[in-house]
Amino acid sequence: MKSDELFALLRRRGVLWPSAEIYGGAQGLYDYGPLGTALKRRVEDAWTAWFVGLSHDYYTIEAAEILPEAVVRASGHLENFTDPEVSCENCHAEFRADTVLEKVRPEGVDGLTNPEIAEIIRAKGLKCPNCGSKALSVPRSFNLMFGFDFGVSGHDRVYLRPETAQSSYLSFPRMWDVGRRALPLGIAIVGKAYRNEIAPRQILFRMRSFTQSELQIFFDPENFPVPFDRVREEPLPVVRAERRLRGSEEVEWIPAGELASAGGLPDFYVYHLVHSYRYYRDVLGFPGNRLRLFEKSEQERAFYNRIHFDLEAELESLGGFKEIGGVHYRGDYDLSRHGQGSGRDLSVTLTGGRSVLPHVLELTSGPDRTLWALADLQIAREGERTVWKLPAYLAPIAVGVFPLIEKAHAEYALRVADDLAATGLSVQYDASSSIGRRYARMDEVGTPFCVTVDGETLADGPTRDTVTVRERDSKQQTRVAVHALAAHIHSALRFPRPPRS
Amino acid sequence: MKSDELFALLRRRGVLWPSAEIYGGAQGLYDYGPLGTALKRRVEDAWTAWFVGLSHDYYTIEAAEILPEAVVRASGHLENFTDPEVSCENCHAEFRADTVLEKVRPEGVDGLTNPEIAEIIRAKGLKCPNCGSKALSVPRSFNLMFGFDFGVSGHDRVYLRPETAQSSYLSFPRMWDVGRRALPLGIAIVGKAYRNEIAPRQILFRMRSFTQSELQIFFDPENFPVPFDRVREEPLPVVRAERRLRGSEEVEWIPAGELASAGGLPDFYVYHLVHSYRYYRDVLGFPGNRLRLFEKSEQERAFYNRIHFDLEAELESLGGFKEIGGVHYRGDYDLSRHGQGSGRDLSVTLTGGRSVLPHVLELTSGPDRTLWALADLQIAREGERTVWKLPAYLAPIAVGVFPLIEKAHAEYALRVADDLAATGLSVQYDASSSIGRRYARMDEVGTPFCVTVDGETLADGPTRDTVTVRERDSKQQTRVAVHALAAHIHSALRFPRPPRS
Repeated sequence: MKSDELFALLRRRGVLWPSAEIYGGAQGLYDYGPLGTALKRRVEDAWTAWFVGLSHDYYTIEAAEILPEAVVRASGHLENFTDPEVSCENCHAEFRADTVLEKVRPEGVDGLTNPEIAEIIRAKGLKCPNCGSKALSVPRSFNLMFGFDFGVSGHDRVYLRPETAQSSYLSFPRMWDVGRRALPLGIAIVGKAYRNEIAPRQILFRMRSFTQSELQIFFDPENFPVPFDRVREEPLPVVRAERRLRGSEEVEWIPAGELASAGGLPDFYVYHLVHSYRYYRDVLGFPGNRLRLFEKSEQERAFYNRIHFDLEAELESLGGFKEIGGVHYRGDYDLSRHGQGSGRDLSVTLTGGRSVLPHVLELTSGPDRTLWALADLQIAREGERTVWKLPAYLAPIAVGVFPLIEKAHAEYALRVADDLAATGLSVQYDASSSIGRRYARMDEVGTPFCVTVDGETLADGPTRDTVTVRERDSKQQTRVAVHALAAHIHSALRFPRPPRS
Repeated sequence: MKSDELFALLRRRGVLWPSAEIYGGAQGLYDYGPLGTALKRRVEDAWTAWFVGLSHDYYTIEAAEILPEAVVRASGHLENFTDPEVSCENCHAEFRADTVLEKVRPEGVDGLTNPEIAEIIRAKGLKCPNCGSKALSVPRSFNLMFGFDFGVSGHDRVYLRPETAQSSYLSFPRMWDVGRRALPLGIAIVGKAYRNEIAPRQILFRMRSFTQSELQIFFDPENFPVPFDRVREEPLPVVRAERRLRGSEEVEWIPAGELASAGGLPDFYVYHLVHSYRYYRDVLGFPGNRLRLFEKSEQERAFYNRIHFDLEAELESLGGFKEIGGVHYRGDYDLSRHGQGSGRDLSVTLTGGRSVLPHVLELTSGPDRTLWALADLQIAREGERTVWKLPAYLAPIAVGVFPLIEKAHAEYALRVADDLAATGLSVQYDASSSIGRRYARMDEVGTPFCVTVDGETLADGPTRDTVTVRERDSKQQTRVAVHALAAHIHSALRFPRPPRS
């Protein structure tokens, strides 16, 4: 499906829609309906179970989205968190420079200076994408943060955080103090970030308000032990930066061990790259061959990132591979900058007395993009039938409950629905139209189980108090005793977790 | 405990701390550590289970926190969402007018105009609370919304939403379209709201970034059926506005039925007031006699609210009753204003053909304030022991898992911990210091169960593969088979739900 078609489908089903729709919408803002809200929450919880589950010393926190100016000055965002912007002096439209250069430079403008971009525009004779005029301005750097006054004085300026990571860095000293005072220490945040994108587009892929799931692992650069043998044999679909510079973007399948030894990457880095890949493949159920680990070159990556791979998924709706996550080795940049900015030494003393400024490994994923990718990759048409083949534990509705005949079976079925809901399951009761139609509605939103209360349920004899359970993918129906129903369904809904290291 | 003492305790335990602490903090912003994050999330989920659980037609959505200016103009926030502010022309300090008037008018300044406030300041000879000067300015209206530019043009202004409710109103037409097209329809949001408070104070009680749990019920004003008989006998601790005007703030215990009939309140309103009261008493476990339902008079409540009761809890740390929730009958104000603002008729056509502009009943609760109240009301000192007597299903850590002797029992205990975590439980493994100390640490953070792996667990014979389970409040210890452990704990952790109406 094309992007527009998929969006229309998701809107029709109440998964998501443009924010403030009745006012004509607001660029780059979307709202999630009941199904989208539940699915996004399941995705966030699956991410947490998987990544925070990597260690007993990884924790989730929640932090304010508003950052004082001193914080974003220290982090470099005030100065550097910019995109080059070009305006048309004829029609006054505004563009990201990369969209103006799209045809002549499809790889984007990362690493180019504003004068270099201006020179390309001049040399290639590029025109305004809106009116066709050649009166394009020299690019200027446009800061992507939303900033505003804080308090009544007019002197305090604050910013909506452009990434959750900053909140984790700020809380590191307190987390060290209240915790075991040992490295590695992981601080995860699933929360909002905000960017004043010049040109929001591709729906959930460039939003102005979006969610990030990020784990910052603070570690001792001299010693970050990982059980590497458990991942050594795993083949990874890799696109190395140096091969790209030589002209090839093809995926190479390289075993983790080889990527570390011959490939020159640290074991701890490759270990977490494997777990990120497995998250998309094994937890979210993306086909392994529609994923790739795309290395950013030194020019492309942020200067503080020593190693940077994006996790990319190939999406039909967006015409190719798109970033949905990443693994960033940020060195000591963050704690060192916030140490300077706050005037506080953020190094810690390890058992044994050695003082260390921890390094940071950042594992990041976008739940909004993930939701879109789940729709792109897993909504399948099978003849007449449309099935959203979500992993059962991600489904927004865990179980549909139907009375076969409303008059006869509604009371019992409503009780079954309420009892299942009381165990924490998301339940949809549906008594309208034929059973086939009801199955179809549940298939469309990925509900893994449908329970039907029928004559046998109420009959005397051995089938009494059993119901029909119909499984989404196989369409198989089995009879299950009502008292065993909740356990039967719950057992299919556990998030995968990594073996503890 | 006093506020400062309680805050110090919570900070020490890693429940919460000031945001951007290493930069000296930011007024009115707080971060939650691992325990606070988990507890707040449990509170939010308990709220959802209870209130969204009131009907099969109530749903949770997630919506962008940024509102276009046209939205807040229509809602009235651009014009009216202000607090009177007074500045000192001598020392330039800024104050909320109510803090300047605190001693002469403890009931606050709601309903007073700026000239009326100025007259009181003049007549009483009030001085600057900071420097003592009499050079206080005439009050001005200070808008409490954070506003900023959106996009690159400089012409689009947006605001962080001052209440989640607005997002629900905006989504009503879409929710109507994708749903059953029947009233009542409930739209819940648990999300962030932002207010540029002139004087943030009382920690979690007046924050600049905070969470709201709000359910907007859209209903047919001619017909909002509720099973009122189920609540008729329930005595409620009420403070009526008209009695307050006559000088009494005492709580009267009035049965719900009487509040509706003699008290002149609609059945649907009192029904939801009962469920709000029960939420705090039965779900959160607040003592019923430390709660009161405090009616706002016509002068005090927002002009669009036809009926307004606050839910208030008596908190030692804050010196009296404090608002933690509310039940607001907002009439058709919201849909009517957004209908005008968007130029779209937001009335709906019911089965039978009647056209209705739905009225709104708003049930609201503050999870941040709730968390504080749980700490204030439920942290108990019992001799040497400090116990946080949280309801088991709210506890941030569900179960502590200990090896009796680390060398002998750690491997088995770690496996038990991982197996319990895999069922979705929040587990803390602890092998350090004596069992007594470990129990004490778990008591402090409200963990309802502690599991100890000991010699018997590993022994041959009938006690093999059983563990000791120690219950927090009774301190009773029982032996439970390992295979039955997860079910044993999960059964105590289900959120209470109301009977379906």
